[in-house]
Amino acid sequence: MVHAGIVGATGYGGIELFRLLYNHPDVDEISLYSSSEAGKPYASFMPQVSGWFKGELRPIDEEQMKKELDVLFLATPAGVSGGLTPSFLDSGVKVIDLSGDLRLKNTEDYEKWYKKQASSESLLNEAVYGLSETNRENIKKAEILANPGCYPTAVLLGTAPLASRSDWNGDSLIIDAKSGISGAGKTPSEKSIYANTEENFRIYKVNGHQHIPEIEQQLQWWSGESEPITFSPHLVPMTRGIMATMYVNVDKTAPAEDWMELYREFYKDSPFVRVREDFPATKDVYASNFCDIHVTMDERTGRLTIVSVIDNLVKGASGQAVQNMNIMLGFEETKGLEFFPLYP
Amino acid sequence: MVHAGIVGATGYGGIELFRLLYNHPDVDEISLYSSSEAGKPYASFMPQVSGWFKGELRPIDEEQMKKELDVLFLATPAGVSGGLTPSFLDSGVKVIDLSGDLRLKNTEDYEKWYKKQASSESLLNEAVYGLSETNRENIKKAEILANPGCYPTAVLLGTAPLASRSDWNGDSLIIDAKSGISGAGKTPSEKSIYANTEENFRIYKVNGHQHIPEIEQQLQWWSGESEPITFSPHLVPMTRGIMATMYVNVDKTAPAEDWMELYREFYKDSPFVRVREDFPATKDVYASNFCDIHVTMDERTGRLTIVSVIDNLVKGASGQAVQNMNIMLGFEETKGLEFFPLYP
Amino acid sequence: MVHAGIVGATGYGGIELFRLLYNHPDVDEISLYSSSEAGKPYASFMPQVSGWFKGELRPIDEEQMKKELDVLFLATPAGVSGGLTPSFLDSGVKVIDLSGDLRLKNTEDYEKWYKKQASSESLLNEAVYGLSETNRENIKKAEILANPGCYPTAVLLGTAPLASRSDWNGDSLIIDAKSGISGAGKTPSEKSIYANTEENFRIYKVNGHQHIPEIEQQLQWWSGESEPITFSPHLVPMTRGIMATMYVNVDKTAPAEDWMELYREFYKDSPFVRVREDFPATKDVYASNFCDIHVTMDERTGRLTIVSVIDNLVKGASGQAVQNMNIMLGFEETKGLEFFPLYP
Amino acid sequence: MVHAGIVGATGYGGIELFRLLYNHPDVDEISLYSSSEAGKPYASFMPQVSGWFKGELRPIDEEQMKKELDVLFLATPAGVSGGLTPSFLDSGVKVIDLSGDLRLKNTEDYEKWYKKQASSESLLNEAVYGLSETNRENIKKAEILANPGCYPTAVLLGTAPLASRSDWNGDSLIIDAKSGISGAGKTPSEKSIYANTEENFRIYKVNGHQHIPEIEQQLQWWSGESEPITFSPHLVPMTRGIMATMYVNVDKTAPAEDWMELYREFYKDSPFVRVREDFPATKDVYASNFCDIHVTMDERTGRLTIVSVIDNLVKGASGQAVQNMNIMLGFEETKGLEFFPLYP
Repeated sequence: MVHAGIVGATGYGGIELFRLLYNHPDVDEISLYSSSEAGKPYASFMPQVSGWFKGELRPIDEEQMKKELDVLFLATPAGVSGGLTPSFLDSGVKVIDLSGDLRLKNTEDYEKWYKKQASSESLLNEAVYGLSETNRENIKKAEILANPGCYPTAVLLGTAPLASRSDWNGDSLIIDAKSGISGAGKTPSEKSIYANTEENFRIYKVNGHQHIPEIEQQLQWWSGESEPITFSPHLVPMTRGIMATMYVNVDKTAPAEDWMELYREFYKDSPFVRVREDFPATKDVYASNFCDIHVTMDERTGRLTIVSVIDNLVKGASGQAVQNMNIMLGFEETKGLEFFPLYP
Repeated sequence: MVHAGIVGATGYGGIELFRLLYNHPDVDEISLYSSSEAGKPYASFMPQVSGWFKGELRPIDEEQMKKELDVLFLATPAGVSGGLTPSFLDSGVKVIDLSGDLRLKNTEDYEKWYKKQASSESLLNEAVYGLSETNRENIKKAEILANPGCYPTAVLLGTAPLASRSDWNGDSLIIDAKSGISGAGKTPSEKSIYANTEENFRIYKVNGHQHIPEIEQQLQWWSGESEPITFSPHLVPMTRGIMATMYVNVDKTAPAEDWMELYREFYKDSPFVRVREDFPATKDVYASNFCDIHVTMDERTGRLTIVSVIDNLVKGASGQAVQNMNIMLGFEETKGLEFFPLYP
Repeated sequence: MVHAGIVGATGYGGIELFRLLYNHPDVDEISLYSSSEAGKPYASFMPQVSGWFKGELRPIDEEQMKKELDVLFLATPAGVSGGLTPSFLDSGVKVIDLSGDLRLKNTEDYEKWYKKQASSESLLNEAVYGLSETNRENIKKAEILANPGCYPTAVLLGTAPLASRSDWNGDSLIIDAKSGISGAGKTPSEKSIYANTEENFRIYKVNGHQHIPEIEQQLQWWSGESEPITFSPHLVPMTRGIMATMYVNVDKTAPAEDWMELYREFYKDSPFVRVREDFPATKDVYASNFCDIHVTMDERTGRLTIVSVIDNLVKGASGQAVQNMNIMLGFEETKGLEFFPLYP
Repeated sequence: MVHAGIVGATGYGGIELFRLLYNHPDVDEISLYSSSEAGKPYASFMPQVSGWFKGELRPIDEEQMKKELDVLFLATPAGVSGGLTPSFLDSGVKVIDLSGDLRLKNTEDYEKWYKKQASSESLLNEAVYGLSETNRENIKKAEILANPGCYPTAVLLGTAPLASRSDWNGDSLIIDAKSGISGAGKTPSEKSIYANTEENFRIYKVNGHQHIPEIEQQLQWWSGESEPITFSPHLVPMTRGIMATMYVNVDKTAPAEDWMELYREFYKDSPFVRVREDFPATKDVYASNFCDIHVTMDERTGRLTIVSVIDNLVKGASGQAVQNMNIMLGFEETKGLEFFPLYP
């Protein structure tokens, strides 16, 4: 049985991790850590757990953590993991970092897009990128895992079957992405208040979002070529969910069904990726670890339209982190994640 | 292990039942029945289960069902259970009816409020009213269970600690209830469309809702007196959740803390009822089987204000049905229901 | 033609005032004032006016304002009007205060409920309470007007036809009120963010809201008796709108139609109060200055249920302020307010 | 003064037309027509107008209409205008058709995309396409006007400054469009109910929407070339608003500011099109006749991103229809439309 720790348990990612780990059949103990709120009952931040979960937030004591924990999740803001993670190297504690700190292998990219100092190159080299479906062998051996961002998860699962093909036209790729507001985090801001979100559809950080280099890095690993993408994130008046609508040119037309078959074959051993017969909606995967995908070919324009949907807090963050924990610890990949989307 | 059947699996109650039973550790087979849609894959109604659940809707064949099933849930519209249930009497199949058909013991009440013919008196006498926390001993022995309505669950759990006391003033009880739109069911109507629900708060069926006699019947069982209630249901622009705000006069003032203590004591062995230190919100119990309650005393007016919140589709319908199944089959009451509310 | 000024033009009340005054046929100039943001273009706070309205926020210069303005609206937080208003006494500038500062005649009440120092008694005596439909004669002569709060507007218009009758049972009055989140103002807070508001129904400040003494004061003026009310405000997941559901006992039963007739007669010369044939919803008055009311009698309990709906930012604040300006300046009461609710 | 008629006054387009015309300073009479509901008070369909507007729906009597009306708006479903309009040719009544019937000049296109029989070619030739900002001279002289669709309005105003240039790359144009649910109309359907819309983001009719030929036709008129577009409409969980995010390749890079200047110049005499300094959100134009646009150049990819937002029921339907009426009747283009977006 596993003893799991979470640093950053009061943010949205940490809350969702706690909810998932609490019901995981192989996790029997969860410790929650906070530097600023240590000593307070978790329920004082989360009325949802009151009555049932009596645990308190514990101070961050790395020596103690190394003795007790099997796996440590870092659900912290950018700039924290680089400091915390090195203590756990060679400690036997598996570290799964949900922040963006360990994802970019090129330190210049990190510093340009995140405006913070990058982690050490040795740490970055040690950290395995955890897009579960496409990197299982490396994840199995990982001691430190960089859990993918929410947009990159939706985008990369939607392009993986294509991007390693010789006929991939990476320079034509346009990504029009839409996210629920929980992606903006828990801190109140003018952007996140109800009156500015309800009955409003917004676009932001056009070609300027920090998930762009993460997507480009993985596409380059697959295709061998460095090509800039066009990426427009939007905010939808809803709490959870991401849809990435993607457009890419193909060299020669083939029936839509051929492209579907390519996707089905690619994901045939990946239970959480469902290649759907029609375009999915975000509610089809709400509060679940699924990524639903559909692709179609427009013969008039010679262009593919690919749609990929996830719950940004589950498959786009905490659910995929648990999936990666399962792979790292040798459990069945689906353990603790075998539940259906909530409806309605 | 249990083989469970659901009639009416494509409505909201049936969908939620399926979701809960699918993850119940003691249920290993679920059969879904439909008279009109038999033969079609369940996933064609529910994209949420596509890929993972291949089952089809089966025709209603009572003889076959009696051979195979351990428990049968009826998530059917009013007027159906009365016809279906008698076949299963003495069959060994436990029947849990989520409709309103078997709740009212007085057939005149049923016919007045539901405008349909009542079930036979013998059937009504056989059916045990399943407000789990207050009727466990009878539920344990039940062959046929009438699962409470959503509003009655919130209201009755909020008044149970008071209504059997000698100082109960039933005639002063005013219930101002608010529900998400899923309570109106799945059939599209002018009432349920988005443009009439969003940015709209509505009141309906004032003192005319069919849950009124169900509440009055239980209050009379507790207090020994028949007293009409004032009941105003409202529709909130949200999908799930009920809050019942209740007002009742008390003979002499006692500190709010005394009333809280009364509630805590009453529910000390009921894990799903959480007596909260402050007024709860519906999102505190979203997608969970909890009922959260708080009570306060206004010394200026000598009146109690009691607030009770539930998820109408879980504790107010399918979750309580599973809780009742657990009690009827001798399982731990919380089995398959030990998950936290979703947040955010 | 009128030159109107607004202090506090960047809050929700001020924004709505600007929108209404901009289209008022007798207002030809609007000056916007701010102590902290003077010099900045209004459009930089309000993308909605960009391109069309080039005005800047002006500093608060009372001498200058007295020379230029005909009417001054104060859409400021509690605690500001008491300081600003006295300068304009005897200046010929009509002052309309949208804050709570000048509403309560009893300074102890103000200090107890608002936790701030009260305005001077002479100022309070000068300020006329502006519930337009019930106080027109005094409003006509007012130099300083205290514009009613949002909840009091809905509640008092709903009870006015009853509260001055000899058979009024004020001590039985229970008010269950529901408001959209814009009532909480523009400052981001944990309470107002989308993820805590959507799919959530909340209750707050039970019997502790600062609008309670305002309601009780007016009821006492009408009935001659001081009686505490029970008042439960709730937050609805929507931006605009208030519904007050009110319960009151009546001495003897009379048909619902008699009560309706009483209301119709009372409001026959009040174009903005619509006595409706059925219970209204908040969207029936969305973005308009209407107050829609319906009343029904429950013969089983001898209790009236009264429902009153308004748009909290229009009839509950800025619209009523413009209506009061019309009365104070001798214009037709409906001027600039003759538009229908937005739908859908 | 103008007497205006509306056929189809109970649909969303007709309701919004009524609201706008009711406050139009040059319209003094409005007649509402319905074949199926004639004789019923309009308020029985629209609680929003109760008390103030006593008018009834009138039967469609073309002779009578020709005698009385100055302008007739057809807010009818596809397939109706073709039959109604010819009666009014040479009658002196200006006809403004809000449906799609008279927009496509090529009857084969209409029949392919609308699956109905096209109107006669002579009628189609007579009907002027009413994209107000780009076709004023023809609109002035029009007897019959085809009011543009909602998506085409947003898309074409966003591309007009580019599409007539010699360096226009029409074949690279990708349109990712997002609309509120009111675009789906008033009839309840599985698609439009709250529980399927809230907390859900959907894509539909990919490269199959009937607004595609309307957009392509206008682009061809401007560019001289027939080029297929990629068009993905999405449904946003909100009632009103459209955002079109558009991507197009440009031959040589020029600073973003140059493109902005091109747009500013193009729209300098068009008060309803606001070229904004930053990307607009749909709520910036909510319930108004504005179309807000911003364009940016990504130097990494050599691609423009253009964003255009409108309220689909105002500038995308009824507001533009009133704007066209103003032009046709020789009024100031902005008359009756000079109000700001509602906020919050």
